[in-house]
Formats: sequence, C-alpha cells, structure tokens
Amino acid sequence: MSEFNVIGRRVPKQDGVARVTGRAVYTDDIKLPQMLHGRILRSPVPHARIVSIDTSKAKQLAGVKAVITAADMPRSGFGYGKDNSPLKWEKVRCVGDEVAAVAAIDDNTAEEALSLIQIEYEQLPAVYDPEEAQREGAPLVHERSKNNVSFSWTFNKGDVEGAIAEADVVVEDRFRTQYINACPLEPHICLASFDQAGNLAVWVPIHFAFMFRKDVAEVMGMPWSKVRVIQPAIGGSFGSKIDTEPFHFICIALAQKTGRPVKIAFTREEEFLAARPRQPMILDIRMAAKKDGTLLARDVHIISDNGAYNAWGSHALFAAMMSVTSLYRVPNVRFVGDVVYTNKPYGGSVRGFGNPQATFAIESQMDILAQKLGIDPLELRLKNANQPGDVTVQDVKITSCGLAESIEKVAQRIGWSEHHGKGGNRGVGVASLIHVGGGARIYKSDGCGAIVKIDDGGDITVIIGSSELGQGSETVQAMMAAEELGARLEDIRVINSDTAIKPWDVGSHASRSTFISGMAIKRAAEQAKKQLFEAAAQKLEARPEDLESLDSKIFVKGSPDRFLTFGQAARADLLRTGGDVIVAKYFYDPPNVELDRGFFGNVSATYAFGSHAAEVKVDPETGAVDVVRIAAAHDVGRALNPMGLEAQIEGGVAMGFGYAMTEELQVKNGVIQNVSLLDYRVPTVQDVPAIDPIIIETIDPIGPFGAKGMGECSTVPTAPAIANAIYDATGVRIKDLPITPEKVLRALEEAKETSKDGSEGGLIDE
Amino acid sequence: MSEFNVIGRRVPKQDGVARVTGRAVYTDDIKLPQMLHGRILRSPVPHARIVSIDTSKAKQLAGVKAVITAADMPRSGFGYGKDNSPLKWEKVRCVGDEVAAVAAIDDNTAEEALSLIQIEYEQLPAVYDPEEAQREGAPLVHERSKNNVSFSWTFNKGDVEGAIAEADVVVEDRFRTQYINACPLEPHICLASFDQAGNLAVWVPIHFAFMFRKDVAEVMGMPWSKVRVIQPAIGGSFGSKIDTEPFHFICIALAQKTGRPVKIAFTREEEFLAARPRQPMILDIRMAAKKDGTLLARDVHIISDNGAYNAWGSHALFAAMMSVTSLYRVPNVRFVGDVVYTNKPYGGSVRGFGNPQATFAIESQMDILAQKLGIDPLELRLKNANQPGDVTVQDVKITSCGLAESIEKVAQRIGWSEHHGKGGNRGVGVASLIHVGGGARIYKSDGCGAIVKIDDGGDITVIIGSSELGQGSETVQAMMAAEELGARLEDIRVINSDTAIKPWDVGSHASRSTFISGMAIKRAAEQAKKQLFEAAAQKLEARPEDLESLDSKIFVKGSPDRFLTFGQAARADLLRTGGDVIVAKYFYDPPNVELDRGFFGNVSATYAFGSHAAEVKVDPETGAVDVVRIAAAHDVGRALNPMGLEAQIEGGVAMGFGYAMTEELQVKNGVIQNVSLLDYRVPTVQDVPAIDPIIIETIDPIGPFGAKGMGECSTVPTAPAIANAIYDATGVRIKDLPITPEKVLRALEEAKETSKDGSEGGLIDE
Repeated sequence: MSEFNVIGRRVPKQDGVARVTGRAVYTDDIKLPQMLHGRILRSPVPHARIVSIDTSKAKQLAGVKAVITAADMPRSGFGYGKDNSPLKWEKVRCVGDEVAAVAAIDDNTAEEALSLIQIEYEQLPAVYDPEEAQREGAPLVHERSKNNVSFSWTFNKGDVEGAIAEADVVVEDRFRTQYINACPLEPHICLASFDQAGNLAVWVPIHFAFMFRKDVAEVMGMPWSKVRVIQPAIGGSFGSKIDTEPFHFICIALAQKTGRPVKIAFTREEEFLAARPRQPMILDIRMAAKKDGTLLARDVHIISDNGAYNAWGSHALFAAMMSVTSLYRVPNVRFVGDVVYTNKPYGGSVRGFGNPQATFAIESQMDILAQKLGIDPLELRLKNANQPGDVTVQDVKITSCGLAESIEKVAQRIGWSEHHGKGGNRGVGVASLIHVGGGARIYKSDGCGAIVKIDDGGDITVIIGSSELGQGSETVQAMMAAEELGARLEDIRVINSDTAIKPWDVGSHASRSTFISGMAIKRAAEQAKKQLFEAAAQKLEARPEDLESLDSKIFVKGSPDRFLTFGQAARADLLRTGGDVIVAKYFYDPPNVELDRGFFGNVSATYAFGSHAAEVKVDPETGAVDVVRIAAAHDVGRALNPMGLEAQIEGGVAMGFGYAMTEELQVKNGVIQNVSLLDYRVPTVQDVPAIDPIIIETIDPIGPFGAKGMGECSTVPTAPAIANAIYDATGVRIKDLPITPEKVLRALEEAKETSKDGSEGGLIDE
Repeated sequence: MSEFNVIGRRVPKQDGVARVTGRAVYTDDIKLPQMLHGRILRSPVPHARIVSIDTSKAKQLAGVKAVITAADMPRSGFGYGKDNSPLKWEKVRCVGDEVAAVAAIDDNTAEEALSLIQIEYEQLPAVYDPEEAQREGAPLVHERSKNNVSFSWTFNKGDVEGAIAEADVVVEDRFRTQYINACPLEPHICLASFDQAGNLAVWVPIHFAFMFRKDVAEVMGMPWSKVRVIQPAIGGSFGSKIDTEPFHFICIALAQKTGRPVKIAFTREEEFLAARPRQPMILDIRMAAKKDGTLLARDVHIISDNGAYNAWGSHALFAAMMSVTSLYRVPNVRFVGDVVYTNKPYGGSVRGFGNPQATFAIESQMDILAQKLGIDPLELRLKNANQPGDVTVQDVKITSCGLAESIEKVAQRIGWSEHHGKGGNRGVGVASLIHVGGGARIYKSDGCGAIVKIDDGGDITVIIGSSELGQGSETVQAMMAAEELGARLEDIRVINSDTAIKPWDVGSHASRSTFISGMAIKRAAEQAKKQLFEAAAQKLEARPEDLESLDSKIFVKGSPDRFLTFGQAARADLLRTGGDVIVAKYFYDPPNVELDRGFFGNVSATYAFGSHAAEVKVDPETGAVDVVRIAAAHDVGRALNPMGLEAQIEGGVAMGFGYAMTEELQVKNGVIQNVSLLDYRVPTVQDVPAIDPIIIETIDPIGPFGAKGMGECSTVPTAPAIANAIYDATGVRIKDLPITPEKVLRALEEAKETSKDGSEGGLIDE
C-alpha cells in the first residue's frame, strides 16, 4: 500500500473536460464593454530603412479609433541588450517587424485600415546565414554588434586540448537544426484595459506574469504597481508565450491612446510569422574518449542563428551549454556559443530551450563515437552515465539520478538486444538527456509564493504564484495540497491567474512548477493544517499533536469515531469568540543560491534525466522513415500523478517526433514560406508513432514528496534516438534536422558511392 | 493639520468613472462559452392550487434546452421556517410565484417557450389585508400558520402599563407604511455554471456571498465546498439583493440539467414583480411622558404585512424593535411585532430594514407629543436624547453618540427658530434616528476576514471578505489600508469578488462594512507593515522600531534621506536567500458577543445616530408639497471619506424622499399594478430636493480610526422630518406613506371641518 493517499493516483487533468468541450474561458472569449480590436502592420521586407509612413487614410476610415506608429508610443528598448522596440522607426530588421498598428471597432475594419497605411521602405542588404553574418563586410543587423555577434557564452574547465591529444579516439562533427514553430492551438493574444486612475489590466496567456508586468512597466514608463496581469485559460504555449513581445506593448499603447479596452489576437498566419520560433543552431562538436569508452573531453562551438533581436531565446545556449558540460561524466569541457544576429525571425523559448538542439548533437555523436570505438551505444552511455552524488565540471550537483535506469528500461522495452545492429533497413536507437528539474536561477530569486485558505465549507483554495500553461500543474498542485493536508482532492481548488491575487513567482519555465510551487504549497499547507488542527483540538478536546487527517476529516489518533470534517473544524475556528479564518502563506526559493555564478554554476536544485529509444523502418527506395514506436523513460523523482506524467511524455515525444521528422519553418530570403497548418507539417495524432511512456522514480531528496520537474524533458532526446535508429537501420547518419525522406534518400545514395572506403558511412563532415 | 495622511481626504469612488462610462463589468456583461438564457414562468394568480402543468410543447420548441418544474429540481424549503421553495408545486401563494422555467439558446426563444407552457390553476380564496388575515376563518397562506401569523417578536421591559397610568400625557396613533421597490439600476441577475467535477460557480450580485453558498448548497443538496460565488460589479442593491431567491436556485438547476452555463436576468417588469420590496407595516404606538417632556414609556404593536413567504424581510421587525426600545431614553418599553402572511409580494430587506417604518411612526409621534405637551419638538428630542455611556432598556450599549449634536446642527441649518411654527403653508420639521453602526449579530459570527499582500511593485492588494454593493466600501477600505500602512492610496487595490479568494465574512448588511471590514483591514495591514519593516530594516541597517512610513516609502525616523520605497522593501524581502512574500491575514469579529440573546441584546458594537430637518411649502389648493430642502446630519464616528459620506447621505435622503412622497407599489388583489419606471415614481435627480449633508464626528472608541457605519441611516428619518414639516406648515398630520397631494388635500379639507374643536387638528386616530 502506498504511503500516500492522493500522491501517486492517476488523476485526469482537472480542466480537461472544459477544454475539450469548449467551456474553458480563453482570452479570446473575454469581451469587455466597449472593447476595440487591434491589428499590427508588419514589415514585408527583411532589412530596410523606413523612409515614410502615411497613416492619414487609415485614420479617416470609419470605425478606426487609433492608428499608431513609433512616434505615438514609448520607443523604449527591451529584450536582452534592449535591442528590440515595440514599434520600429528608422529601420526594420526582419520580416514581421511591427511598424504601425490600428485599433478599430471590429477586426475587419482594423484589417482594412492596415491596407490604407502607406509605408515607403528603402531596402538594405540583408544577411541570413549566421556564419556569413560574422564575415568582414557583412551587413550589420544592429550597428553596435560589429560582426553581428550579439554576445557569446564561454565555458572552459579542465584541459580540453590536452585530453584530446592524449585520447584514443576523437570524433568531430557538425550538426544543424532548424526553425520550428511551437504551434499552440491558441495563437498569441492580448487584451489590455486602463481604468480611470491609469491602472492597467492585461489579460494574456503568459509564463512570467510578474516579470511581464515589470517589462510592461519599464517599457511603457509606468509604475509596476499600476500593472495587473490576468491569465485566462491558456491554449498551449510550449514556451512560445514566455516572452513579453512587441504586440503586447502595442496592444497596451492602443488601449492607452483610445481609453478603451483593446484586444490583439494573432491569426494563424501571424502566429507562424511573428511568434518566436525555436532558433536554428549550427553545432560543431568534438568528443574524445579512451579505448574503453571513458569520455575524456568535449569541445563544442555552437552558433545560434538568433535572428533579428534578442528575445528569451538568445539565452537558449544556457541549456545547450549545461547538457554539453553535464550529460555523462566528462572531465574536460570547452564551450563557446555565439548568438548571431541575422535578418530573420528571432528565436524564442520552445520546450527544452536549446537542449533539443544540443542533445541532438551530443547524442548523435555518442553513437558515432560508439561506432568508432566498437562499443555498443548502450554500454557507452551506461559506462559514462551520471550517478547520484556526481558534481559535473560545471559544478552541477546531481542528487537523484535515474539516467542509467532510464537507458536500461528503454533498451528493454524497445527490444535492444533483439533488434540492434541487425540492419536490413530496420533499426533501433537510443538517446538520453539531462535537464534542469527544479527551476533555473535566471533572476535573483527562483522562488514561488503560495497561500492556502480553508473555508467554512471545508473547501481549500491554493493561491499559487506559478502559471498553468496547459501542462496540468493545477492538478498536481491540488494533489500535493490534498496530500499534505489530508484532504480529499475534490476539496481543493487552485487559483493562479492574477498578479493582484497571487503571491510572487518568477514565472513558469525550466520545468520548475511542480518542484518549486510544490514546495511552497507543501509548506503553506503545513501551516494551514496547524491552524486547522488547533481549532479542531479545542472542539475535540484533544491536543493538536494527537490529531491526524484523512479525506478532509480530522481524527483523534486511534479513535475513528472522534472526528470533525474540515468544514466543521474551519467553522469551529470561525464561529467562536475571537474567531479566525484559516489562511497561511509560504514562499519557497530552492537552496541552490549561486547568484554570483549565474548560468554557469549549479543552476537548479535538481536535475532530470531520461532516455528515449526509437524503432524505425526505412524505405530504401523513397527514403521514407517509419518511426514504429518510441519508448520514453523519464526520471521524475516521484510520480505525483502518473497519468499527467504519461501525458507529458506522450506530448513531448510527439513534439520531439515532429522536430525530428517533419517540422520546419522554411525561411527563404528572410521570409517564412509555410505560414499555415496545411503547409507547416506539425504531426497529427495520425502521424505520431506508438509511444511507450515509462516512469522512473528516484525520490529526489529536496523536491516535494521526492518529485522533480520533467515538463520539457520528454521532447529533448527524441530526435537523436530516431537519428541513431536510422543509422542502425541503414548505416547512414543524418546530422541536420528534420530528417526528411529526401535527406535520407540522398544519404543512402551517397553511402552506396562511398561504401568502399570502409569508414562509418553516411554524411561525415570530418 | 490632520493626524492622518489619507483618512479624512475627499476621495471619489474608485470605480466611479468605470460605472458612469459603461466600462464596469456587470454580471450581464459576462458571456460564457455555450451560455444559455433562462426565463421563469410565474403565477398570474395570488392563491391557487396547481392542477396541472404541461411543458411538452415548450420542450419541442427549437433552441429550448430544458424546461423544468418542481418535479425536476429539489423541493427543499428555504427562508425562515423553510416556508419557501424554488419552484412551486401543489400551490401558489402570490402573484409572481415561480412555477416553471426554461433554458434556451437566447432570450427570445426562452420567452416564447414560456408562452407554450400550459398551467391549469384552481383559484383559492386569497387574503390581502394583514389584519383580516388574522381573523377566524380567513384563508390560510400556509396551513401550518393557523391565523396567518408566521411568528411574533415580543419585548417587555419595565412597567409599561404603570408608567402610562402615571404619565401626564399619553399619545396613541396608528401609522401605516407602504410597499416600495428598491429600484436598483441593475435588475436581479444570476449566471450559473458547473464544471466537469460538479463544481458550481455562480456569478451574482449579492450581499451575503458565503451565506449564499450555504443556502445554495443546502437547497440544491450539494456540499458547500462545491459552490463558488463570484460577484461582478453590482448595479445597486439597497438591500434588495440580500436574499437567496427562488430564481437563483432555478438558474442553478437549469445549469445542472443542461450541463451548460445559464443566465437569468430579470426584466424591469420582473424586477418590480419579483424583487423583494420593503414590507408595509401597520404601527400602533402609544407614548407616555411627564409634563416636562421626560419620556416614560412606549407601547408598540407592529403588524408587518409580510406577504407570502419569509424572506430576510421577515426579520425587519428586529430593526424596528431596536428603534422602539432605544431611540431616546425610554425606561419602560413593550413591543409586539407580528409577521403576518398575506397572498401578496413578500418583503425583503430594503435600506434601513424595518427602521424607516418604525422611525416614521416614532418620530411623527414625538412631534404629536410635543404639540400636546406644548414643548418645542427640538427641545423634547434634546431632553430625551441618548447620550454616550447610556444603556437602553434593550441593553443597547451606546458608546459614541452624536444624536443631540445632530439635532442642533440640522435645526441651525434649516433655520429652525426662524421658520418653525410660523404656519402659512410653510414649515420645517425634524426627525432623528438610531441604527446599528457596527454590524448586527445575525449569525454566530459577525466577523470579516482580510488578507493584505504587498508585491514587488510596492502595490498592495487588500482581499476582503465583505462585498461592495455600490456604496463605495472599496474606496474607504483602500483608504484605511493606505492609512495604516503609510502607503499612497493609488497603490492599494481592493478585491472582494470571489468566495474562492476572499476570506470569510458574514455578508454586507447592517451598515457593517466600514466598521468590521475596516478593523480586519487595519489589523491585517499592521501585520503586513511589520513584515515590510523587518525587510526594510535589514536593508536600511536600522531597527524596525526606528522606521516609519509615508507615501509608500519607509524612512529611518529623523533621516528623510534614508528610505526605501515599498517596492524596494518588498523586493528586499523577496530577492534574498530564504526570501519571503509579504502576506498577512486578520479576522475581526466585534466584541459585542451575546449569542444567547440574539436580536434582543446589544446587537451591534456601536450605534449610529442622526437627524434630518426638512423645509416644505404646501399648496393648499392642490395638496402638493414642495420639499424645498433637507438638512441631514449624521454621526459617522470619524469621517474617513467625507465625499463618500456626503454621497451616501445624498443618496439616502433621495430614497427617503421617494419613500415619503412618491413611491408606492400599488397592489390590487395581490397584483402589483405599476411595474415600470414610468408608472412607479422613483424620484429623479430633477425631483430630489436640495440636500445639505452634515457630518458629525464622535470618534467611536471601537471602530477603525473611530469610524462607524451609516450606509442605511441617511434614508431613515427623511419621511417623518417631512411629515413633521407638513404639520408645521399646515397643521395636518399625515400618518400613512406616501404623502401624496391627494392625502394632504383631503387632510386639509377635514382639518377645516374639525378645526373648531381646538384639538391638534389633522388626522388623529385617538
């Protein structure tokens, strides 16, 4: 029997039915009195000087309430290095750049008004390739970045060159990854409204509610205190709604200018054009090992094709770097990451945040190395696997660690020994990952506040700082509160939608919600329970320490007949002389406080591990790859809600599969070509392979009930697992994503031609 | 200079502009996905047996999603004595009784469906007069109440008969008051929605959010914990939205049955027909005094014409009784109040809750007594006025008391000495009141919870249990929080709209919000300030006790340059190792805990007093009364927001003026005749006399910053002040409201006929 009453149960998402039946209230469902509709005029050219803007005709259109350009709103810089601005003046730097905006009584009028705005552009030479961008004389996206390198990450520990020189085997490869769109069902949207005193309320699906208001206040020149951020139901984000974007500021400026609420809702085309994609990377990686497979060094240079501005995505190299330094035991690591401006869409945060790119490279190369060493790829991984108690060269402190177990589990499930190395266009491949599992310290605090209130009906409200992003955090938060309180799950409601109501939280990112909000809830619930027990103790004529709770009842230990319901106990507290309400708060900031080292130290309080194994069939005539199934094992610390975890694994694998095989924003001369769900091939439920989710419990020493986060993990190693399986099936190695039939077919043909030289085969850049 | 920084300032209502510009979000502005519209079929007859109901045709109408009768929902009783039920079966007891209901895709369809429901009634003999209703053989509204007396209030202290026997003067009169509708701009409305787990959310303008959910849970057979009550902006209530009504339960039942959100919004006609009116009363009152004017006894019998069911209004005799026992020093008091069923609209709670009726009688009779004694009515009042420290025969403990001062002030402002007793169809009159000023203990707790949260922007959220009813409580609550914290008013927001979020409160009634919620806010703010000062002290390298705050800054005392803003201090608390959020709670239950005596003891923690003086001109040809102006002085303890208080006085006087002069629901054979704003004469801004609001400060020893409540008070003594002025002008005494030109003219004519007998003149019932 479980030691828990609620934790570990298979609980469907509490908002699931509302979402699938259309009953959930999304931002677009909210219609405020006198609300206007905003639309944005975007640059059709990748790099140009703005010669003139004529809005006079648009302003004359009936139903138009405001037309604004950069002259009408703050030009404040925002983003890392303040290189972006809400509306552009002087220059546009990528297609989609915001140049003007309209607020009108309806969407059609706003759209018509856009067509009446006349802009004269003087086109400038543009640069699209991040390597070309660094060459002498390349056009500059931002004048102040001399070679278009916005900034660089460097890490160097140990003696990489020495280790490589002394190694038995060295492999060196270049990998490339593509642009993808996160494709949430709900496109980006924002609704802004000012009250008479100049207080702003913004309804917006967003990860970082409190940071969003800081951004808004800073850019719009308002006190933070005047900004309230409310998040209705969110229709998915997968990281893409983490940034404070130009359209948010524009929406707010239109509301300010018109004195009326303004909503801007992206069309699907606009979502493809203007939502932040996952940034492409070029990854040059050298890995050195001893004959026995012991890893000696990694030497990695990543060029992040950042696009025109530094959004959150400019920091995706942080997660890439951490996997470079800390996936497997590697004593000597050098990492250089260059964030390079190009006149293209600029990257944001998409699930995994740099790690899918890095892990594709590292884990593809682990197989290349295994091949070169003549060691089974599984064995190579197990030999070098991180272990509990390890401290990596980055000083990442590994506590709980299910890496080895995850490798063994997926190998078993995929039938490794049976299928591996058999060729014949059928094969299996494995890949693993490390990711932050308890937040990542991106700000002075990585904390989250919680308030727990127990009412006269025995109902319990958890007001939590973190945001629900569709990942099911509300459900698991309710479970943790129920467990700690000894309450029935159905008595808990979770509220997290409003900065005015919820206590501070840095924001939902880095797979931190379960871990950090969970600890905040657990501790606040402990205190609320104490208040409740004190009230019950008086009524039950017992001492608080002699009480215990189960199913929302408080019992005198050993006397199953002497009990009060939570409602009775709460009323006993309320309805007495000098009564009280039961309300407790807690703020949890994880103990890995290393502000001085920022991203380069022990960034998280725990780390999540996992492995995927893929089975594929390749059609040698067409290059088509049939991904038959994927076993995905993830170390979750403790499985709080296995159903939710399995759903997260399935969703992550589906995203990883799309990343591996079909998804790519095709950008030609800076213009995204495929801006509809017909042309952009996000996998449907028909396309996704069979998924075998496997949960590995390692009971984290710090996390709530032993849990850690894994929201992002399950999308990270899918692509290399498939690439490795294709190699196992065919002997060809695809090093650039996505793995289209064309690439496979070409590689198969090239392999035939080069097969006589006896080397690894496939596309080797060495 | 004021000892306060925020308290005492003239602050406009914080939601004022939103309300007058249509930007406020009322319940009717909320449209949920898939929402249906509900309508109710009401009895057109006052008393009948329901023979049959045929809903088959209505059910077949396209767009109709549910048609329900009492067979389809719980028949639970509710209201005092559980004499009411959501939908009626077997019998209807008044016109407007709910018999069936429809939910359809739009309002027109729902209305059409109603017309397709066929009901056969067998009419029963009805009773409309509350005196006739008590006679042997009268039709019984409820079989279990043998003489149609639902219940009675009795109070007897001292020796009333002895005092009357020994008195120098005894007056005895019968007064009558009428039905009125509270006429909020927003008719009654309710929106109910169930989620997948059977959790119910109800959007509803209501006074008693937590009690509402208790009622809903009990009637609908749900756990309390599953009911969440959310109050959008309220378009006025004046008490009329205090009850949990049949239509609320019906709306919820329709939502349950259809599985979709259902909104029921009263039409204006329905508002007149089915909203609870102020109940008519017949007041027989004897008062005895010594020659010198010293009051000796009051002997009062009130018949409350309760209508068909016991809503909250059945308890209005509580407030009437308190004025009978405690307005002026009266050593011997007998009170009998009978709540009598009739087949008519049933009374609710309208501003003043029984007190406007009682005060009309008492204060009219004080003038009659003065006339008989030959004492100036002012002098008679001042002689008998309650004084601080008095304990009345009901054990009402008077602490702060501005009664005498209010009499003197209004007399001065109205020019008493100049105008009184001059006749010539011009006159002045005065009337006073006592009312609860710090709540009224109607439940085991009279308390209210508050949460104060200070965020990283220095913004402060006050989450308060009480409800904003349009009276401006949010504004004054924000002021109290700002004062206690040393914050700028604009940094405070008040949230009070959601039982899931706010801590428990008994509900907004009995003029308690300022007093009780104010104390809760003050104490919670004290604790939040302590947390904030502790954080600031570390940063400022000072001791918390050496700090002081002003304008949202924390200073080291005596060092105006050493300070942190609230935002900086909150961030200092947040962004440190082991950081914290600033959140504090407090629950305030006033100290007058006398649960055993219920309504008959010291029901409130303080009492509010005041006086109105009216100047009138009477046209002897038409009987038309021109109320020239009204001076209204109210003891508010401390004037927290003089602008808000003046607005409350003005609004109260306007209501009192309508009650006195023009408003009356004309009920004929149980049917309200005037069901539109054209036919029901609520005074417009053109009709209302000039009002001279006067604030009297007595600094209450218990209330927050010395304040007490006065929300209801300002409507209470207007009618008797006008009646007394009319008497002063003409010598005729009108004892039944409203004082129409017809009544005045008739009285003038009768007075001419009887003037030779030298008695008081006018309509004397003795």
